[in-house]
Amino acid sequence: MKLSEFGGEFKLIADITARFGNFHNVHTTVGDDAAVVRVGDSFMVITTDVLVEDQHFSRKWSTPCQIGLKTLEANVSDVVAMGARPELLLLNLVLPDGIEVEFVQELYRAIREGCERYRITLIGGDTNAGPVLMLGATLTGTTDRPVLRSGARVGDLICVTGDVGASCAGLMLLRKGVELRGRVRTRHLEPRCRHDVARKIAPFATAMIDISDGVASETLHICERSRVGAVIEAGRLPIHPETSTACRTTGIATIDCALSGGEDFELLFTLPPDKVAELKARVSDFTVIGEIVDRSRGACYLGPDGTRNPLPRGFDHFGLEKA
Amino acid sequence: MKLSEFGGEFKLIADITARFGNFHNVHTTVGDDAAVVRVGDSFMVITTDVLVEDQHFSRKWSTPCQIGLKTLEANVSDVVAMGARPELLLLNLVLPDGIEVEFVQELYRAIREGCERYRITLIGGDTNAGPVLMLGATLTGTTDRPVLRSGARVGDLICVTGDVGASCAGLMLLRKGVELRGRVRTRHLEPRCRHDVARKIAPFATAMIDISDGVASETLHICERSRVGAVIEAGRLPIHPETSTACRTTGIATIDCALSGGEDFELLFTLPPDKVAELKARVSDFTVIGEIVDRSRGACYLGPDGTRNPLPRGFDHFGLEKA
Repeated sequence: MKLSEFGGEFKLIADITARFGNFHNVHTTVGDDAAVVRVGDSFMVITTDVLVEDQHFSRKWSTPCQIGLKTLEANVSDVVAMGARPELLLLNLVLPDGIEVEFVQELYRAIREGCERYRITLIGGDTNAGPVLMLGATLTGTTDRPVLRSGARVGDLICVTGDVGASCAGLMLLRKGVELRGRVRTRHLEPRCRHDVARKIAPFATAMIDISDGVASETLHICERSRVGAVIEAGRLPIHPETSTACRTTGIATIDCALSGGEDFELLFTLPPDKVAELKARVSDFTVIGEIVDRSRGACYLGPDGTRNPLPRGFDHFGLEKA
Repeated sequence: MKLSEFGGEFKLIADITARFGNFHNVHTTVGDDAAVVRVGDSFMVITTDVLVEDQHFSRKWSTPCQIGLKTLEANVSDVVAMGARPELLLLNLVLPDGIEVEFVQELYRAIREGCERYRITLIGGDTNAGPVLMLGATLTGTTDRPVLRSGARVGDLICVTGDVGASCAGLMLLRKGVELRGRVRTRHLEPRCRHDVARKIAPFATAMIDISDGVASETLHICERSRVGAVIEAGRLPIHPETSTACRTTGIATIDCALSGGEDFELLFTLPPDKVAELKARVSDFTVIGEIVDRSRGACYLGPDGTRNPLPRGFDHFGLEKA
C-alpha cells in the first residue's frame, strides 16, 4: 500500500509509535515539540529535526550560512517553545558527492555562531555521503517547568508572537522567480526563532508550540493534545505589510498564507485572560488571535466576513493532506 | 576545494568542531562513541548515527526488518561501548517517494522489538520525504563510570570480543552475487551488538570502543585519544572459519578483512594484564590480540611472518583514505 492510500506519514507514524513501550521516567513522548524527561528536580527536553535538500531548502536559493542557520534555529525554536534553555547539540550531516569544503565550512560557521549566541555546546554527530545534502540536528534543553501542548483550558486566549505568513510568502515569491527583499527575505532565508521572548512567556502560558507548520496546524495540535476546541479570528492575525504585498504579487490569499504558511518560528501559546496585562508589561510583541472553546465546538476560524470555517490542516512533507 | 583535496570528511569535521565552544558540563565531546555529560551523580551518554541507503545498506540485499535492526544495534553498540545502559531513542526517517506502508511498518517492528529487548523508550523523531531511505537515530544511556577511548595505559592488553571480519566478508560475497549463509549472513545482515557482555567488561576496561570501522581503525582511535602506541599480533585475531572461507571465495586476504572490515559491532578494549583471569571468569568470549606500547613506537601489527606493518586506517565514507 502506498503512503497516500494509508493517509500520509503523520497517520502512519502515530499508528506505529503508539505501540512502543515506555520503560523510563518519560514525562511526554512522541507528539510535543520536544520529548520531556525528568532528571532529578528538573526536566530535560530533547528535540530532533532533519532538513532535506529540495524539501526544506534549496542550494539554488540559500547560502550555506543560511542553511546552517535555519537548521539550528528550527531546533532551538522547538526547545524554547517548551520553555527550556537550549544546551547540547548533536549534528548529523549527509554530504553529496563533489560538495566543496568551503560550503561545509560556511555551513558550520553559521551553526557555530548560533551555538555561541545561544550558549549551546556541540557534543557530537555523524557525517556520511549521500545523494543530497541533509542536516539532522538533535538538541537538548533544561527547564524546571516544561510548557506542553496539552495544558490549554477553555476560556484561555490564543496568542502569537511577531507576525505570521512571511516565510511562506517569501517561498511563493522565490517560486515565481522574484528576488527576495526585506521582511519576507529575512523570514524565509534567515529566520530567527523567538528565543528572546520564550522564557518570558513560559511562566504565563498554559500551552505553547512553535509555528513550523502554520498557525492553523499548530492550533489543531494544541486542540488535540489539550482536548479542547478553538476559534481563531482571521482578521486579528498579525500580518506584516510586506507579506500582504507578496501575497498580492503571487496571487495567494493573504489569509491562507497567514493560517497555513509554515516555518515562521514564531510562538503560538494559550494564556488565561487575566494574565494578558501582566505579560504585555514584559513582552509587547504578541497578539491575541482567538480563544480556546469547548471541544464540542471544534476548531475553526472566523473569516473577515464572519463566516465560520474549519481550520485547514495544512500539508505534510509528502504533499498529502495531513491525517 | 573538493573534500578529497582537503583530506576527507574526518579531517574536515575535526578541523571545524575544534572551534566550537564548551558552555556546559560536558565530560567529553566530539571524538568518542558517544558524548558524555555529567547529570547529578551519574553520567548521560548520547550518540547519533545516520544510515544512508546504498552507503550503509541496500534494499536489494536487506529486508526492512534487517535495516531497522541494524540501525538500532549500531546505536546501542555505541552506548554499551561506553559502559552505559541504553535508555531513550529519537528516530528520524527520510522516506523516498512511493515507499510501501508495509515496508515502514516492518522496519519499525524490528526497531520496536529491539527497544523491548534493551528496554529503550522511543521518545520522538522526525519524518520527511527525500530521494533515498535514511534512518537517523539518537540514543541516550546512563552510567556511573563511562569507559572512554582515552584511558589506555602502556602495558595494557588489547582485547576483542567474539570474532572479527565476518560482516565485511559477507559484504564481499554479496558484491560477487553470492547468496549469504551462516555466520557471514547473520553478521552482515542481522548483526547484534555486544550488549550481553559490555557491562561485565566495563568495570575492568581502561578504554573501550565498538568495532564499526574495523579493528585497525578502532585501535588507532584509542591510540590517538590515549596518546599511546599499539602492537596487534595478526595471528591472534579471532576469525570464524566461515569468514576465512568467504575470504578465499572472494579473493581478499583474510587478515585485511579482519583488520579493516567494519560493522562487526564487537568490542575492542584495553585491560591491565592482572585483570585478564578475573574478567575471563565472567566473560569467556574475548581474545587478547595485542598490547599497548609507548607512543614513540607507533601503532602497528605483526604479520604472520613476524613483519611489522603500520596499522591501516581504513577508508572513510567518501572512499578516501582517512586523515
